[in-house]
Amino acid sequence: MILTVTPNVALDITYRVDRLVPGASHRVREVAQRAGGKGINVARVLQALGHDTVSFGFVGDETAAAVTADLARSRLTHQLIPVQGPTRRSVAVVDAGDGQATLFNEAGPRVPAAGWAELEAMLAARLPEAAALVVSGSLPPGAADDACARLVRLAAAHRVPVLVDAAGAALLEAAAAGVDIVKPNASELLEATGLGDVAAAATALRRRGATAVVASRGAAGMTALTPEGSWHAAPPTRIVGNPTGSGDAAAAALIAGAVAGAPWPDRLRQAVALSAAAVRQPTAGSVDLRHYDRLFPQVSVEEHHAPGLDR
Amino acid sequence: MILTVTPNVALDITYRVDRLVPGASHRVREVAQRAGGKGINVARVLQALGHDTVSFGFVGDETAAAVTADLARSRLTHQLIPVQGPTRRSVAVVDAGDGQATLFNEAGPRVPAAGWAELEAMLAARLPEAAALVVSGSLPPGAADDACARLVRLAAAHRVPVLVDAAGAALLEAAAAGVDIVKPNASELLEATGLGDVAAAATALRRRGATAVVASRGAAGMTALTPEGSWHAAPPTRIVGNPTGSGDAAAAALIAGAVAGAPWPDRLRQAVALSAAAVRQPTAGSVDLRHYDRLFPQVSVEEHHAPGLDR
Repeated sequence: MILTVTPNVALDITYRVDRLVPGASHRVREVAQRAGGKGINVARVLQALGHDTVSFGFVGDETAAAVTADLARSRLTHQLIPVQGPTRRSVAVVDAGDGQATLFNEAGPRVPAAGWAELEAMLAARLPEAAALVVSGSLPPGAADDACARLVRLAAAHRVPVLVDAAGAALLEAAAAGVDIVKPNASELLEATGLGDVAAAATALRRRGATAVVASRGAAGMTALTPEGSWHAAPPTRIVGNPTGSGDAAAAALIAGAVAGAPWPDRLRQAVALSAAAVRQPTAGSVDLRHYDRLFPQVSVEEHHAPGLDR
Repeated sequence: MILTVTPNVALDITYRVDRLVPGASHRVREVAQRAGGKGINVARVLQALGHDTVSFGFVGDETAAAVTADLARSRLTHQLIPVQGPTRRSVAVVDAGDGQATLFNEAGPRVPAAGWAELEAMLAARLPEAAALVVSGSLPPGAADDACARLVRLAAAHRVPVLVDAAGAALLEAAAAGVDIVKPNASELLEATGLGDVAAAATALRRRGATAVVASRGAAGMTALTPEGSWHAAPPTRIVGNPTGSGDAAAAALIAGAVAGAPWPDRLRQAVALSAAAVRQPTAGSVDLRHYDRLFPQVSVEEHHAPGLDR
């Protein structure tokens, strides 16, 4: 069983309108609504791969029912902690004419210190039976910089491998706490380290304490620095579709590979192929597994021996 | 105690963004959220006028908690009936640069026939102690055309005066059911009757069975055809502000006047002044009572004796 933590659970709402006109009043033709946030998307992909998951996180009590109703429909096991206020909403308005999406992202409710203590207690109770832990997505307003690092240490104390997909100070603190895998995207990695080069920034995170660093680079694939070596993996062609959720599919593949004890080149091939299979799906957390099977043998994995990429 | 029915309760969400750019991803700077729908706005204004109210209506169960949390904060008594699905949301995106609002209105969840039967049973239990009933706002998807008319007949059976603010077939059916007051806006009145003139359209509704017809005409005031006579009431100057909710303030004044047995010219003066006091407030359902007190003596009420305006 793989545990995922979504520190700032979202309610992803998609509105379809005839044409988006600023200043006008729009009748919403179609409403789609699902539970979101990166950790929940990772759990969806892990479920598609056949893994049992439990989703943890904080959810605003006023709209928690909409989140849990969708999780129930998706058959995702969860232990969400309610906090006061509305759940963070992310509203995507899709123009039926040109298909263009306009996004409005709320910050989400504040999580009190007691909420974090409750999360740690819940995880501590589940970690003894867990194969891995994933902590993924932005921290809610008011979170301490080391909130994520504390979860990394908790997993380490239970000898459970942990993957973190975060940005900024949370990413740096997770590395310093000795995280097994971090999977930021390239721009998050550069921004957090203040460096201008992905390989140099990944090396810096490993020096801080991260065992492996995988930077996702959109259509260009992924760069990984690990104790086994350094690689760049890329899809055969540019995949057209919705990139939201492709990083979550990669995180799911990487943690599944870690649980299976797969060699790193195989993990990266799976991560790139699954990422591409997610881009082909309209909603985050969904993967087209037939597309994945077709793409998998076509992913290129190239080992790097550049001096900057120390083992 | 005045009962209000909001057939399609809303969750009114306001997002403040730096600048609305179609196709872009926006960080929402401020989120305001409140329970909405015309009947609830009427109840808010009645409460400000010192009346006890009970709000009835249908609310989507998945986000009902957000609605009831706001009603609790507003100290509004309610008996909402949960139906399956998310509550109708109305999202207003306000551009902090030019102050312009862009609206996205959902249709709301379907209400099954059993829901309407439950609403009628709840109202029947409360009507014996009620001074008046207001039914206000759009019908939810799947409602029968006579859903509103049935509530009118129920109130009539209890000898409780009833005001309906509706459009289309629901307005025509309410008139035919012998409603005491209908308060459509002028364009709804013309559209429902297919006539091109407000006085003629109001006369047509009275011939159908409505006792009094009050058409709100925005900044131009209101035209009323009643058994006591016909009037046009207008504010002294054009009031600048947010017109959302001004019709609800007018409905609140008209039903409060009916409960007090006030002469029609007084009711109209109150309705126009309270409407203007609502325009001055940023959110629907709020009125600036000091502005109301100042405006009240300045409202002009002119009696009409045109041949088309039969008593």
